[in-house]
Amino acid sequence: MRKIIVQKYGGSSVADTKRIRNVARRVVGYRKKGCNVVVVVSALGDTTDELLELAHSIVRRPSDRELDMLISTGEQVSVALLAMAMHKLGREAISLTGAQVGIITDAKHTRARILGVNTKRLKAELKKGKIVIVAGFQGTSLDREITTLGRGGSDMTAVALAKVLDARVCEIYTDVEGVYTADPRIVKDAKKLSTISYDEMLELASLGAQVLQSRSVEVASKFNIPIHVRSSFNNKEGTRIIKEVKAMEDVLVRGVAVNKNEAKLTICDVPDKPGVAAKIFKTLADNDINVDMIIQNISRTGATDVSFTINGADLAKTLRCAKDISRNIKARGVTHDKNIAKVSVVGVGMRSHSGVASKMFKALASKKINIEMISTSEIKISCVIDKRRVNEAVRAIHREFRLAKQ
Amino acid sequence: MRKIIVQKYGGSSVADTKRIRNVARRVVGYRKKGCNVVVVVSALGDTTDELLELAHSIVRRPSDRELDMLISTGEQVSVALLAMAMHKLGREAISLTGAQVGIITDAKHTRARILGVNTKRLKAELKKGKIVIVAGFQGTSLDREITTLGRGGSDMTAVALAKVLDARVCEIYTDVEGVYTADPRIVKDAKKLSTISYDEMLELASLGAQVLQSRSVEVASKFNIPIHVRSSFNNKEGTRIIKEVKAMEDVLVRGVAVNKNEAKLTICDVPDKPGVAAKIFKTLADNDINVDMIIQNISRTGATDVSFTINGADLAKTLRCAKDISRNIKARGVTHDKNIAKVSVVGVGMRSHSGVASKMFKALASKKINIEMISTSEIKISCVIDKRRVNEAVRAIHREFRLAKQ
Repeated sequence: MRKIIVQKYGGSSVADTKRIRNVARRVVGYRKKGCNVVVVVSALGDTTDELLELAHSIVRRPSDRELDMLISTGEQVSVALLAMAMHKLGREAISLTGAQVGIITDAKHTRARILGVNTKRLKAELKKGKIVIVAGFQGTSLDREITTLGRGGSDMTAVALAKVLDARVCEIYTDVEGVYTADPRIVKDAKKLSTISYDEMLELASLGAQVLQSRSVEVASKFNIPIHVRSSFNNKEGTRIIKEVKAMEDVLVRGVAVNKNEAKLTICDVPDKPGVAAKIFKTLADNDINVDMIIQNISRTGATDVSFTINGADLAKTLRCAKDISRNIKARGVTHDKNIAKVSVVGVGMRSHSGVASKMFKALASKKINIEMISTSEIKISCVIDKRRVNEAVRAIHREFRLAKQ
Repeated sequence: MRKIIVQKYGGSSVADTKRIRNVARRVVGYRKKGCNVVVVVSALGDTTDELLELAHSIVRRPSDRELDMLISTGEQVSVALLAMAMHKLGREAISLTGAQVGIITDAKHTRARILGVNTKRLKAELKKGKIVIVAGFQGTSLDREITTLGRGGSDMTAVALAKVLDARVCEIYTDVEGVYTADPRIVKDAKKLSTISYDEMLELASLGAQVLQSRSVEVASKFNIPIHVRSSFNNKEGTRIIKEVKAMEDVLVRGVAVNKNEAKLTICDVPDKPGVAAKIFKTLADNDINVDMIIQNISRTGATDVSFTINGADLAKTLRCAKDISRNIKARGVTHDKNIAKVSVVGVGMRSHSGVASKMFKALASKKINIEMISTSEIKISCVIDKRRVNEAVRAIHREFRLAKQ
C-alpha cells in the first residue's frame, strides 16, 4: 500500500458548504498526487457549542452519556457532507463514524481515552482506493456506547490514526498558517515558526495556544509522528512539529504564550504543619479541579499563604471547595483574583543557556509590570501578571528576545 | 416484566425544547402509572428536511449511503435531548440509536427494511427500570452501516418494537387528534373516527393521509398490533386502529382521502399487441418508478392510449423514461398533466354494500366535476380529477355519504 497521509480539518475549515467544497478539492488534489488520504473532520463551525447550548437549555447538568450521544452527531454531519463533496468531484470516498472506523475508547464519557484502533475496515476501504473520511472527536466503548474525546479530540483522532496507519505525516489544518512566536493578533510582527519540537509545542499547547490539543502532541511525541500545522485556506508551508534536533537549542526562546482564562486563589494563614498542602490539593483533585501553578512562601510566623491558579471556568466550584478546606485546616480564609493572566516563554534552548528568566523579568520591569507569581520548568518560564497589562507584556518580551520577523 | 407500551412521537411533537419537556412529562406520567415505556422519537421539527437541503446544496444526487449517515443524526439529537428532559424530572432514562437498540435492516440505504430486532440491550435497560428512548427511522445493516427506513420510518420502528416486545399498545403521537373522515382543513365538519380497521387505514395511509406510514400499518395488521393514533398536545382519546370487526361493515364509507402529489402520463397510440403493456411497466419498474393507477381502454384502431399516474416528484425521470419507451414500441408520443388530484372513498362496508361508486360519481357530477380516471379495489374507489376542483369534490363526497358530525 502507498504511504498514507492523515489530514485533520477543524471546524472553521468546514464551517459552510463553500469551505467543505474547498476541503474536498484539497484532499482530492493530494489523492491525485498518489497519496492515500485519511481525512479526520470536526463538526461544522460552532455546531458543538450550539448542541451543548441546546442541552443546557433543557437541563443544567446533562448526563455525560447523553451529551456524547448528542454532540457526536456534529462530526457525523461533517463527514457525510464532505464525502458528498468528494463524490461531486468524481472521487470514491466513504465516511465513517468513530465506531465504524474502530476507535475503541474507555467508558469515560465526554473525556474518553483511546484504548486502541481496529483498523480492519479502514484498511479495507483504503485498499479499494477510497478516500476515507473519519468523524473526529468520537469513539465507541467496549459495550458499544458512543464516547467523545474532549475538547480538541479530533486532533487526538488524527494522531491515533497516523500512528496505527504508520502515516508519513499528520497534517492539522486550521484557520491560522501555523504556530507563531506569539499571537499575531497581539504582536504584529510575530513570526511563523518553520519547526518546533514536541516538548515546546506541548508547553505552548497547554499554555493556551489553541492550534493543537496537548494530549495529541504527547502521543505524537511518544510515537515520533511528524505533525504539520497549516492553513486550509492556502498552500503555504506551515509549522512542522518534530523530534528535537541539536540545532534547536541555539534558539533561546521559541515563543511567548498567554493564558487569560485562569483565576488565582489564596488560602490565607495556612498553619505551617506537615501534610497540610497535601490535604488542600488532594481535596481539590477529588473535586475534579485542575490546579496549574502553586506558590507557597517560607513561613516566619507559623502560618503561610498558599496561592494557586485554576481554570477560570472552575472558579465558583473551587471557591466553595477552598472555603471548606480553609475551615477544616483552620486557615484564615480565601481570597481570589480573576483579573490575572499568565505569560510564558518556551524554548528548549533554556536547557543550555542561562539568563532567560532575568531577561524576561527585565522586559516586564521595563514596562513597570508587577509579577504576582512565577513558575518554571526545564523549558518554560511563566509569570502571572495583571490581566489588563498582558498585551503590553507579551510585546515587551517578544521584543526582548528578538523574536520578530526581520 | 410489566406490560410494555410503545409510544412514538413525531417531529412536530418534539419541535422545540418546550415540546420536548412536554413529551418527557407525558412519558414519565405513564411510567408512574406502572407501565414500562419504550419511546420512539423522530427528528426535531423539520430537521430531516433541513439536512436533506444541506446535502443537495453540495451535490445534486447525494449517495444514499452518505444520506443515511447524514440524516440519521436528526433522531440521535432528539433522543439525547429527550433523555436529558426525563433526567431533569428525576427519572432514569436512556437513549439508544437504531444500532444500539438492535434494529437490523437490509443494506438498501434510505429505504431499508427491518430484518429483525435484537432485543437484548433493550430488555436489559427495561429490566433496570429505565425508560428507553429509541431513535426512530434508523437501523444498522449486517455490516454495521447506518441505514434509514424511508419517510415515516419512525412509525415502522415503533411497530417493530411493539411486536418484538409484545407491547399492549403502540401509541402514535402526532399534531392531530386522530384519523378523520376527511382532512379537517378542507372539510370543516369532518369527524374524528374512534376506530378504523387496518385495511381501511392502509388505504387511507397510501392515499395520502399523512398520519401514519403505510408499511407500518401492514406490519401492525400482520401481527395484530393495536395502534392508537392521538395528539401529543392533549389527553383526548384518538383513533384506534384495530382488527376488523363485524360492526364495521355497517358503515359504507369510513373516510375520504385526497392525494395532490400525483401526475398523469399518457403514452399515445400504443400498438395493441400482446406484451406491450408488460414492456412499458417493466421498464418503469426497472427505473424505480412507482406507478399508481393504470388505465387502458379497448382499442378499436389497432392502437390505444395507455395512461398512468405516478408520484409528482418522479415526473421528470418518468417523462424521460416514457419517451424512450414510446420510441421503442413505436407509439406516437407522451403527454403529461401535473394538474390532477386523486380523491378516494375507503370503507370495508363496500364489500357488502353496492352503490358506493355511483353515489360518489353522483356527488362529483352534482358539482360538474369531470372524472379523468377511475380505479377501484375491494374497499376503495378512486377518481382522478382536476386539481383545482379537489376541495369542492371532497366536500361534496363527504356530504353525500353523511360523514359529518351531527
